[in-house]
Amino acid sequence: MTIFWSEEQLRHRDTHFVQLGAIRASRESAERAASIAATLRTRGKVLCAPPDVGMDPILAVHDTDYVEFLRNAWDRWRAEFGDTPFGTGGHAMPNVFPQVPHAQKPDLIVGQIGWYTGDMAAEIVSGTWTAAYWAAQGAIAAARGVLQTGRAHYALCRPPGHHALAGKAMGFCYLNNAAIAAQELRKATPRVAILDVDVHHGNGTQAIFYDRADVLTVSMHSHPRSYYPFFTGYAEERGEGAGAGYNLNLTYDFGAGDTPFLSALDRSIAAITDFAPDALVLALGVDASEHDTHGRHAVTRAAFTSMAERIRAFDLPTVIVQEGGYESPVLGHLIADVLDVFDI
Amino acid sequence: MTIFWSEEQLRHRDTHFVQLGAIRASRESAERAASIAATLRTRGKVLCAPPDVGMDPILAVHDTDYVEFLRNAWDRWRAEFGDTPFGTGGHAMPNVFPQVPHAQKPDLIVGQIGWYTGDMAAEIVSGTWTAAYWAAQGAIAAARGVLQTGRAHYALCRPPGHHALAGKAMGFCYLNNAAIAAQELRKATPRVAILDVDVHHGNGTQAIFYDRADVLTVSMHSHPRSYYPFFTGYAEERGEGAGAGYNLNLTYDFGAGDTPFLSALDRSIAAITDFAPDALVLALGVDASEHDTHGRHAVTRAAFTSMAERIRAFDLPTVIVQEGGYESPVLGHLIADVLDVFDI
Repeated sequence: MTIFWSEEQLRHRDTHFVQLGAIRASRESAERAASIAATLRTRGKVLCAPPDVGMDPILAVHDTDYVEFLRNAWDRWRAEFGDTPFGTGGHAMPNVFPQVPHAQKPDLIVGQIGWYTGDMAAEIVSGTWTAAYWAAQGAIAAARGVLQTGRAHYALCRPPGHHALAGKAMGFCYLNNAAIAAQELRKATPRVAILDVDVHHGNGTQAIFYDRADVLTVSMHSHPRSYYPFFTGYAEERGEGAGAGYNLNLTYDFGAGDTPFLSALDRSIAAITDFAPDALVLALGVDASEHDTHGRHAVTRAAFTSMAERIRAFDLPTVIVQEGGYESPVLGHLIADVLDVFDI
Repeated sequence: MTIFWSEEQLRHRDTHFVQLGAIRASRESAERAASIAATLRTRGKVLCAPPDVGMDPILAVHDTDYVEFLRNAWDRWRAEFGDTPFGTGGHAMPNVFPQVPHAQKPDLIVGQIGWYTGDMAAEIVSGTWTAAYWAAQGAIAAARGVLQTGRAHYALCRPPGHHALAGKAMGFCYLNNAAIAAQELRKATPRVAILDVDVHHGNGTQAIFYDRADVLTVSMHSHPRSYYPFFTGYAEERGEGAGAGYNLNLTYDFGAGDTPFLSALDRSIAAITDFAPDALVLALGVDASEHDTHGRHAVTRAAFTSMAERIRAFDLPTVIVQEGGYESPVLGHLIADVLDVFDI
């Protein structure tokens, strides 16, 4: 019943992303995170720094070379460009991506940043690794707390995680906190389900567990034909190999409100019920909210509470990790409402 | 012995690209092209508009859906974002790319532009399709002229082409003019070699012919471990299937001067001699020049002339298509020098 949050997570700050052909301030800002933390405190919640349990749970999900890259990328970028006439003071962002089979990883940081990122929304700044590391520590601590107590725990993970692949950052995400939590739960429970209710497809989480039957991944999200991340999140993606049948994408239309959202939730719950997991990870994005200036969908605050009640009814050991949810007058309250339902 | 150039190629203008985390004016500008054309004229060259022979030679190389996308992308982008509050007046650039196997093509133009581009250097503006179409027409006209006369012809192709894949734009390139010319030559000659001397790997040309033995692709370029396009252009890439052995990448180090450049040329010439082609496409980038502010290598004007003489010594029917070469006091002269060697 603990909420995990570290001020270290604020070190990822003043980031930018490319949207509609312009470089804009990232919506996943340090101010956003501080605002959530502040609202949770006004709602009476106590936020606790997680212990540092090291890299092993992160490396159980992410590729070692990718993690090394994340740790060092900013220093390497600065060393390469910081003091040269060719330097622009520009952002540590990729500009070219591997496009063909058998592409090779280059040496230069400019090329490597394209190798290790999937889009233009994963800028790396001086504090990115530290913040991502502590967000992951929060997810690990929540998972361990759930295993110890059987009660729900919440990690205010930020940067978020569900777009991060085993070896690539994208969509404001660097380390896949939900996947790390699920893998941690798997140490003690044979079957784990991840339910991702963020308005965007949890493509990283899907990819990490795509060939596994022990972790059911369910994502409900705005249809990717017209919404980020565009290229995955379609109903046909059901898993492969041993994982065939253990991935489920449930979509609603762009702009949708409560009814399509809760209908997708019904189908998510049915699939999770069939799977009969021992534990649950709720990847809690609240960016489908009608008040979210980024998400642009029409889900009401009442629907989020109803969602939480239905998920709570599983009565499963549940790790809640924060995903998206952006500028909104009710951002922190939407999260606090969910935590109230889970008695966190 | 004709030089093909259409003023329509200037319609691709005022473009931008992302470099080192900033949006900058594209170095492959309309002004660059106009400057080359003007210098060629001062050097006594006559520039002729190519005839319009339609789409078939383009579609012999490029995917139909990609070509349709290029034709319509700007109008679709404007229709989607031009008049909405969410519009930014930003550039028609991608921001997310397909990153996993079995990714699907979305409907929305924002997603499709990432589907059909490989990097942040392929902005689409109102005149992009028209300019790329006429650059390709120039390459086709040059190929047909070569077949008719047996003498070298030159197409001042711009936008350039050698980074363009069959289905993706990247690196200032939209239609692969060298590949289109080679395919056109193949109608009348069984074996065609493409020699790409641009400072960047001709990754698109390589990919288009990677499984074919009838078109030898040779690219000499700055080593991709530390130079664009980073992920391809390594020596190990030798072709596959029927094309195994028919692709050759020869690299020199970043900043290299005449000796490594001409050494790579020696090896290129040896490979082409072994292949014994009936016709040659010279993908003429001059951005390895010591005067090129973008390329940043140290090849002298004399070395480019020496290069041209060695290639001329093949005495093959030769199509010369323009690739890179950017801001430089000698840009047009480097090209005119080569054309002089070929009596164009």
